[in-house]
Amino acid sequence: MTYLDDFEFLGNTNKVPDFIDGLKSGHSLFSLVLSYTETCEIPGITIAGADKDSIKFTPPADAEYLYYGYCKTIDKIPMTPDGKPTPALLTKMALDSANIPHIVINAGSKISPQLPFIQTGLSYGRNILVESAMSDSQVSHAVDYGRMVGKHLASMTDCLIIGESIPGGTTTALAVLRGFGFKAKVSSSIPTNPYELKNEIVNTALERLNSNDPYHVISKVGDPMIAFVAGMLSSASEITKVMLAGGTQMTAVLAFASKIGFNVKNTAIGTTCYISDDTSSNFKSTVLEIADIPVIAVNPGLSNSIFSGLKAFSEGFAKEGAGAGGSIISSMIKTGNDSSDFLKLCEKEYDRLFTSL
Amino acid sequence: MTYLDDFEFLGNTNKVPDFIDGLKSGHSLFSLVLSYTETCEIPGITIAGADKDSIKFTPPADAEYLYYGYCKTIDKIPMTPDGKPTPALLTKMALDSANIPHIVINAGSKISPQLPFIQTGLSYGRNILVESAMSDSQVSHAVDYGRMVGKHLASMTDCLIIGESIPGGTTTALAVLRGFGFKAKVSSSIPTNPYELKNEIVNTALERLNSNDPYHVISKVGDPMIAFVAGMLSSASEITKVMLAGGTQMTAVLAFASKIGFNVKNTAIGTTCYISDDTSSNFKSTVLEIADIPVIAVNPGLSNSIFSGLKAFSEGFAKEGAGAGGSIISSMIKTGNDSSDFLKLCEKEYDRLFTSL
Repeated sequence: MTYLDDFEFLGNTNKVPDFIDGLKSGHSLFSLVLSYTETCEIPGITIAGADKDSIKFTPPADAEYLYYGYCKTIDKIPMTPDGKPTPALLTKMALDSANIPHIVINAGSKISPQLPFIQTGLSYGRNILVESAMSDSQVSHAVDYGRMVGKHLASMTDCLIIGESIPGGTTTALAVLRGFGFKAKVSSSIPTNPYELKNEIVNTALERLNSNDPYHVISKVGDPMIAFVAGMLSSASEITKVMLAGGTQMTAVLAFASKIGFNVKNTAIGTTCYISDDTSSNFKSTVLEIADIPVIAVNPGLSNSIFSGLKAFSEGFAKEGAGAGGSIISSMIKTGNDSSDFLKLCEKEYDRLFTSL
Repeated sequence: MTYLDDFEFLGNTNKVPDFIDGLKSGHSLFSLVLSYTETCEIPGITIAGADKDSIKFTPPADAEYLYYGYCKTIDKIPMTPDGKPTPALLTKMALDSANIPHIVINAGSKISPQLPFIQTGLSYGRNILVESAMSDSQVSHAVDYGRMVGKHLASMTDCLIIGESIPGGTTTALAVLRGFGFKAKVSSSIPTNPYELKNEIVNTALERLNSNDPYHVISKVGDPMIAFVAGMLSSASEITKVMLAGGTQMTAVLAFASKIGFNVKNTAIGTTCYISDDTSSNFKSTVLEIADIPVIAVNPGLSNSIFSGLKAFSEGFAKEGAGAGGSIISSMIKTGNDSSDFLKLCEKEYDRLFTSL
């Protein structure tokens, strides 16, 4: 049994060996893009945070946990109301075990993390149920700065992995995909995916569209993360390999990037099998509809965990986030660890975090 | 004639070949640290800026010029009242010609640059003539964040080049060196180095010292750049090669770093011959007194320029800054360009900038 047995390949599988070789022999760099959409404040939309008022602390706290192993903005690491930890736990174990460097980017987080981060000057996105997400100039700013950051980071690495932390982001992702004409159904951090609520929000938001101009769609129903990461992908993929680390939100990034241009040959999506196997979403078919790229989905083996908090990821909670899937894939390729090795690392960390509370 | 003829080697010259080999075969990353000390507002201290009110725009404008080829914060690139350009012109030509990536760090600039940059949350330093530069906790913050940034950037590159843009920084550098007991005389951006004024400021500032604790010295008479870059050097030199790109200000960084610890084996200083040949300062002997490291000084050949604005660098104006010397050294090693090739690049850029005004 090797880590390859933990991988599932979708999309353009011809390009997979090239990506794996690149990740094995070259240097990778992980970037975590923090952002915020007020859409997450609609009750019932997300569980990223112990309660409504603490949701805005999740992105900076994820970043702080990756840096320090603990958070500064809040007391404990981000978790659901019943104590299930942030997927950043998986990301941290993946990056640390493979010694993959990472950098934090603030692309519209409501709260700045207490660590050195790349500042972009972007504001958070507005609640798309009631108003436009961003002004046109904010979308341009996000794309322009994304392009600059993507170009600079790409020139420092052989593979740029991009993850995100934006609570409520699956709802704006759904709106963007629908706005571009895809019949997307998206995953959620909640096992009983709140479809009706999401659809209601998205349908209301889409009424605001009066053109299919890509910038207009992002401005009316998107979020700063989608605009910024699409900009990053657009420039970085011209220079080096890029792995979008995430599920449905990265599908929306891909959809927007396909409008503004990016190098398909250097691009892949890396995610967890909890996303790709999610029958409530149509992740796979949506990616294939957008771009001819490889998708690597990893089974991190958490269903075998002795801890219910880790097992929960395999049962539909969180599923993905903070670039967990792409980080695990890069890490396994670099270290040769398989899912049982990785699970041991996560259990040790889980134990450290929850016995020290 | 090769670029090696343009180099002068000082200090521990045994380590020079290893540094040159590393710069030739590996990837370099240039980081520009922006900062500010209100000490620069003392009339007569600096010419970094067309007038007193515009000095604070010099660090962000230097960074913007490196990024965009023009400035956003101000209309023209930073220049002296009589039109001599910022040394960032040299840095830009060096980095661009060798395709060396760079990243901007805000470590206490009064004004943020209009581009993506690493944010540290540091405030600018106070005027050491009248008050302490920083609180103790600000010094710790600067060192801690410097260590974090240094660690992360070092893990992305084979050689981290660190430059600075802090107007008035030679005066705080002098104060720090004296505070640590070195009989330093420092260079200035002004040909008729305003010794008496500097000494008067430094002597007054040093009266504030009541201990030789290194953090105390930086807090009372230093600036945020010195604390931050020493932190960067301290962690980065444990991971990869580091070239401090600058003159007397980097000597002060080295002095503080030698107190908080750094890896001497991986450290060098790169500067211009306009600094190392400056008879009004004792740059060489001060470096040797502090640490057993190699110093590479490059002659960029600007004395042969047809433009008086470029020739001025060789006549004592600016001399160095924005990491020019270290960038030129890294660039020549990477491209094989010698000083006459480099001069052509600078003249072309100078022509572009000043005919487009």
